[in-house]
Amino acid sequence: MLVSHLEMGMLSEGLTQVLIPVAALVGIVFALLQWYVVSKVKVSGDSSSGLSDKLIEDEEDGVDNREASIKCAEIQNAISIGATSFLFTQYKYLSVFMCVFAAIIFLFLGSVKGFSTKSEACTYNKGSLCKPALANAAFSTIAFLLGALTSVLSGFLGMKIATYANARTTLEARKGVGKAFVTAFRSGAVMGFLLAANGLLVLYISILLFKLYYGDDWEGLYESITGYGLGGSSMALFGRVGGGIYTKAADVGADLVGKVELNIPEDDPRNPAVIADNVGDNVGDIAGMGSDLFGSYAESSCAALFVASISSFGISHDYTAMSFPLIISSVGIVVCLITTLFATDLFKIKDVSEIEPSLKRQLVVSTILMTVGIAMVSFFALPSEFTIFNFGTEKVVKNWHLFFCVAIGLWAGLVIGYTTEYYTSNAYSPVQDVADSCRTGAATNVIFGLALGYKSVIIPIFSIAVAIFVSFSLAAMYGIAVAALGMLSTIATGLAIDAYGPISDNAGGIAEMAGMSHKIRERTDALDAAGNTTAAIGKGFAIGSAALVSLALFGAFVSRAGINTVDVLTPKVFIGLIVGAMLPYWFSAMTMKSVGSAALKMVEEVRRQFKTIPGLMEGRAKPDYANCVKISTDASLREMIPPGALVMLTPLITGTLFGVETLAGVLAGSLVSGVQVAISASNTGGAWDNAKKYIEAGVSEHAKSLGPKGSDPHKAAVIGDTIGDPLKDTSGPSLNILIKLMAVESLVFAPFFAAHGGLLFKYL
Amino acid sequence: MLVSHLEMGMLSEGLTQVLIPVAALVGIVFALLQWYVVSKVKVSGDSSSGLSDKLIEDEEDGVDNREASIKCAEIQNAISIGATSFLFTQYKYLSVFMCVFAAIIFLFLGSVKGFSTKSEACTYNKGSLCKPALANAAFSTIAFLLGALTSVLSGFLGMKIATYANARTTLEARKGVGKAFVTAFRSGAVMGFLLAANGLLVLYISILLFKLYYGDDWEGLYESITGYGLGGSSMALFGRVGGGIYTKAADVGADLVGKVELNIPEDDPRNPAVIADNVGDNVGDIAGMGSDLFGSYAESSCAALFVASISSFGISHDYTAMSFPLIISSVGIVVCLITTLFATDLFKIKDVSEIEPSLKRQLVVSTILMTVGIAMVSFFALPSEFTIFNFGTEKVVKNWHLFFCVAIGLWAGLVIGYTTEYYTSNAYSPVQDVADSCRTGAATNVIFGLALGYKSVIIPIFSIAVAIFVSFSLAAMYGIAVAALGMLSTIATGLAIDAYGPISDNAGGIAEMAGMSHKIRERTDALDAAGNTTAAIGKGFAIGSAALVSLALFGAFVSRAGINTVDVLTPKVFIGLIVGAMLPYWFSAMTMKSVGSAALKMVEEVRRQFKTIPGLMEGRAKPDYANCVKISTDASLREMIPPGALVMLTPLITGTLFGVETLAGVLAGSLVSGVQVAISASNTGGAWDNAKKYIEAGVSEHAKSLGPKGSDPHKAAVIGDTIGDPLKDTSGPSLNILIKLMAVESLVFAPFFAAHGGLLFKYL
Repeated sequence: MLVSHLEMGMLSEGLTQVLIPVAALVGIVFALLQWYVVSKVKVSGDSSSGLSDKLIEDEEDGVDNREASIKCAEIQNAISIGATSFLFTQYKYLSVFMCVFAAIIFLFLGSVKGFSTKSEACTYNKGSLCKPALANAAFSTIAFLLGALTSVLSGFLGMKIATYANARTTLEARKGVGKAFVTAFRSGAVMGFLLAANGLLVLYISILLFKLYYGDDWEGLYESITGYGLGGSSMALFGRVGGGIYTKAADVGADLVGKVELNIPEDDPRNPAVIADNVGDNVGDIAGMGSDLFGSYAESSCAALFVASISSFGISHDYTAMSFPLIISSVGIVVCLITTLFATDLFKIKDVSEIEPSLKRQLVVSTILMTVGIAMVSFFALPSEFTIFNFGTEKVVKNWHLFFCVAIGLWAGLVIGYTTEYYTSNAYSPVQDVADSCRTGAATNVIFGLALGYKSVIIPIFSIAVAIFVSFSLAAMYGIAVAALGMLSTIATGLAIDAYGPISDNAGGIAEMAGMSHKIRERTDALDAAGNTTAAIGKGFAIGSAALVSLALFGAFVSRAGINTVDVLTPKVFIGLIVGAMLPYWFSAMTMKSVGSAALKMVEEVRRQFKTIPGLMEGRAKPDYANCVKISTDASLREMIPPGALVMLTPLITGTLFGVETLAGVLAGSLVSGVQVAISASNTGGAWDNAKKYIEAGVSEHAKSLGPKGSDPHKAAVIGDTIGDPLKDTSGPSLNILIKLMAVESLVFAPFFAAHGGLLFKYL
Repeated sequence: MLVSHLEMGMLSEGLTQVLIPVAALVGIVFALLQWYVVSKVKVSGDSSSGLSDKLIEDEEDGVDNREASIKCAEIQNAISIGATSFLFTQYKYLSVFMCVFAAIIFLFLGSVKGFSTKSEACTYNKGSLCKPALANAAFSTIAFLLGALTSVLSGFLGMKIATYANARTTLEARKGVGKAFVTAFRSGAVMGFLLAANGLLVLYISILLFKLYYGDDWEGLYESITGYGLGGSSMALFGRVGGGIYTKAADVGADLVGKVELNIPEDDPRNPAVIADNVGDNVGDIAGMGSDLFGSYAESSCAALFVASISSFGISHDYTAMSFPLIISSVGIVVCLITTLFATDLFKIKDVSEIEPSLKRQLVVSTILMTVGIAMVSFFALPSEFTIFNFGTEKVVKNWHLFFCVAIGLWAGLVIGYTTEYYTSNAYSPVQDVADSCRTGAATNVIFGLALGYKSVIIPIFSIAVAIFVSFSLAAMYGIAVAALGMLSTIATGLAIDAYGPISDNAGGIAEMAGMSHKIRERTDALDAAGNTTAAIGKGFAIGSAALVSLALFGAFVSRAGINTVDVLTPKVFIGLIVGAMLPYWFSAMTMKSVGSAALKMVEEVRRQFKTIPGLMEGRAKPDYANCVKISTDASLREMIPPGALVMLTPLITGTLFGVETLAGVLAGSLVSGVQVAISASNTGGAWDNAKKYIEAGVSEHAKSLGPKGSDPHKAAVIGDTIGDPLKDTSGPSLNILIKLMAVESLVFAPFFAAHGGLLFKYL
């Protein structure tokens, strides 16, 4: 061993134990502060509606503001009820799943050493005594439940914030685009900071509490903690797939009956599915994305901690160095806080054209500041030299190596974000070409759109490949785990600008429904257009980080399962690889068909309400929004069981029947194949959506020649947009979770597979 | 070493040397015999047109037969001229490519030992002296040119036969569906047997001639022979991609001007692009498929021979066992000959409903007979026990192990064929569901079609995985190579039923253009419908065999490059894996956009001819078919350079800059990802095509409720069909060649990469 185990970084253990919770609390306080600022915008129906009247003094035209404000409050209320209805049904399903799966974890892991309560020799820290496997089973189960609850809480909070902020953004739009932008952005920041701080805090406290039992057995401690990632990600799966099916079923159902059959406008409050449609945006883009990124964050932290625990950090019990992943996240919260001030206080938005640059500046500023932060953490928290576990051997690593690992993940995220923007924003030629192809009909639109999606994978894959190569070469699997953390270190900013999108979208819908003036609708439309771009960037981040995270988890799984090579040139691994590469296709086939059948159920319900509720069409009666929401919720949760089962059962069945080598092949195959399918599906869908918007907006001469609404090219563009809906909002983003979840599940069950797996080969 | 090297199989060397060429000659004679039978159907314009009058005595209705027959001859002549025009332009391009690439092969391989002319110690056959690397460079170059020429010849012959047979099938349809079927089927058999026999014979003779120089240096001999596979496959790439772009450009171009702008019927002889359209069918489906399967056959033979040469067969100079792959192919020709008699002589087709079962029976009969054939060859040609090279170690294998390897490949092919049929034939529910989704428009049609394609990969991938697992476990990479050969052993039958499709398609088109009676069109339509199914099965075979072949080549490459493990857990391999998995997307993006831009060029040319040729619209002047064909040819060949360059340059650049490990990752990644993309693209396209045909035919109550032609669901189905065109005829089938070609190219250049590759890592 080249490295002295006593050498430590400059940051003391005591200071580390203060720094992390303080950073988390600062994040939470900052989030609450932003919420307080947003809450000062009063929506009519609130107690102090007098303030609302005062606030709209600047309003330029003579609309009946009082009435519009009351309408906004009504609509917001309806969306809020819908969202709550969805959450309650979802929790009912999820609690059953959580209990069953918790039992599976406990039984499988408990059986590793036959439920023995005796302590055992440690696997990596030779000569020491570790806690029994049964304790690891129990604590893994607890960590799983904690992760699941935190994920559910993240989704719930995000949705509550978004449904609280949408009408306020609409009302602020009356005072100018700058005010509306700040309101939407602050609300996004509330969600971003709450999620980031919450995830960090729960993880930190769990480790502290687990340590009360585990003491010096860090191997067992951090092995159990991986359950936290599994819990977070499995809830995210349900959030993404269920939410994706939900929102698209409501969207298609509302349009097919409202626009096509009854000829009432889009977003008309008489349509029973229109609230479900608006709820769906929050469910899919806000809660789904929140759970997804929280899951990635939890998993990359767990993967890094697990690898560290079996490296010199863990074996020499260097608490500060062990906490490196958590310190990075802590600094990230502070960096994002400073970055947010750029958008809310340092620069004021005065014109519509400043919105998109302002949001993109957030990404660049946070990336540059975070690079400095990473350098500081790497210098102060780490010893100058240490060893990292590398599949059976120890690799000597210097602190500046880790700086490069984290930084390259961070910058790769920026490249992926900008590439996604280039391929999905209608400011650039790729989307404009797709729009142009609508001249010759829907078929050419689809052909060009699919080709665009395929092409858009090239740069992200090269970025990911470079990040993997550098971090893998410098610090093995630990390097990849911290590279993923680097990409996610600015998660608070990423979530803020991502949540900004659906909030602005809802704000525009509310303005439309409340019958506000043309001027205000123009402002919310401008906010919404920028939101489409940031939503695409958010998806790019989610996919890129998922690729790194699942590779890190894959490495941790392989280490835990005790295999040192995953050789493609063995039949067991190769069949895993090719079947794994098939899984994203199987999964997508199910989710895409689900959207179709769920949409049909929604159509039936909307038709029924218009037939049976007297006065609904005339606007005298209120539709049963909650029932539509319930239909959509039930249908989506039922439809998501098969794809969910595919993801949850594949690692269990493969590991149990075929063993860890085939499972390693499956993970690698689904990772390298799933990333491509996810990126191309998301970008194809985003490009079709924006090609349609490009024709509708008609800003340039070229765009005008394709429009207006209702022209043949526009009709072709609408077909593309509809096809893209399940691709970009259901299949594509769910695939992130497929690849992450299978990897983290394999990691958690690795001790079981290593002990009892491969039954088929054993008895053949 | 457990095995005595002196033990040999029962089949003597002398008998082997007779058996192979005799089987090839039998195949060629049988093909010529079938051609003779087909040629007895006389097309007017032939010298003895009196016979044609005699033959149509049985014609039931009073059409002016003489006139129809003359028209048929005219149309056939035009298609033939178009095909020749295409071939000549293609050869011009290909000859340049062949010379340049031959020079590259010679220079790269010659430089391995600095162009030294001294003999060297053998790599595997320790203690023996092998020929210099320069000789291997020269003979590899010669083998490459031989493979390329054989491939070109295969494509040329196939197209000539098909354009000879189409009008004859139309004329025979006047006498009944049975006669027409036999004519089309016999013509397909001509192509199948010529290609299979030709491929075998050229390979056999090349080995004999190379041996004159190499003598006992079998290592060098069979290493050089791999150039044959590279030559065959690189020509197939140009055939498939160029042909695919060609046929779809002509198809879309002809339709957009003829049907949409000028309102003349489909297949109208006044349309200048209509001949290019018909030529395109022959170019893509006949020549492309022929070159593709010839390439697979050549490559799997080369991969098997190479691995055998460094195993006990080669080291103990057991000529009969070495020739096992060639003997399997020889027996395959005989088995297919017997199988063909079932269709042409033993059973007579009397009714339309008997066509599809008769074609499917061909597959089952040939598979059953071939299983017996494989058992006999394995028993007589192989020693009871021998060793196979397995990445640095020797694996003991018994002769009945090899029987299982070949047989499982054969039967996996049958399963893939039947699955493909299930997902693309409109006799089953998947395609009927897609047709039903057209009720709600093109968007749902596309969503359901994409979902169907994704779903259709599941069973083929599991079949391939099982075949790989069994053959890999029993006999390492040699097992996989012979499993691929097993799947291709019935290639003559496969090609016969595959070529039958486009011939029937053309026959239907000719009947339409010649203004023949409704009854005859009904007969050719029935032939065509069955042809769609068999074309889909042919694509399934092509993809399945490509997967096995490229894995075998991959194994041979790894062996030749001297690496013993391809460990996913190393950064070099993993970045190769993820970038390799991206390549099919990059490739598809290019080919799909190419179809779009090539179609636009065709539109311009057709418009120009209608404007500038006086009397064309009135039918008084003939259009310039050849010019349209030339436009399509030039455009398609220009458009195919970027995707071609991507495939040809990737292994060269990766191997030279990043070395053999990264290249191994790229090959594995592109294999496991490309197979999925290829299967889903082909089946989605096929399903859309047949969903449209299902609505048009209106056979069931359900189908009638969606039709007739021109209804909204039918319009939605047409959009799906158009989107599917580039997917099923350009991108999908070209991907087979992408994965095979990169593997065989890596194998040929392996000595160079092993000696001088990985520059980037060396100097970093």
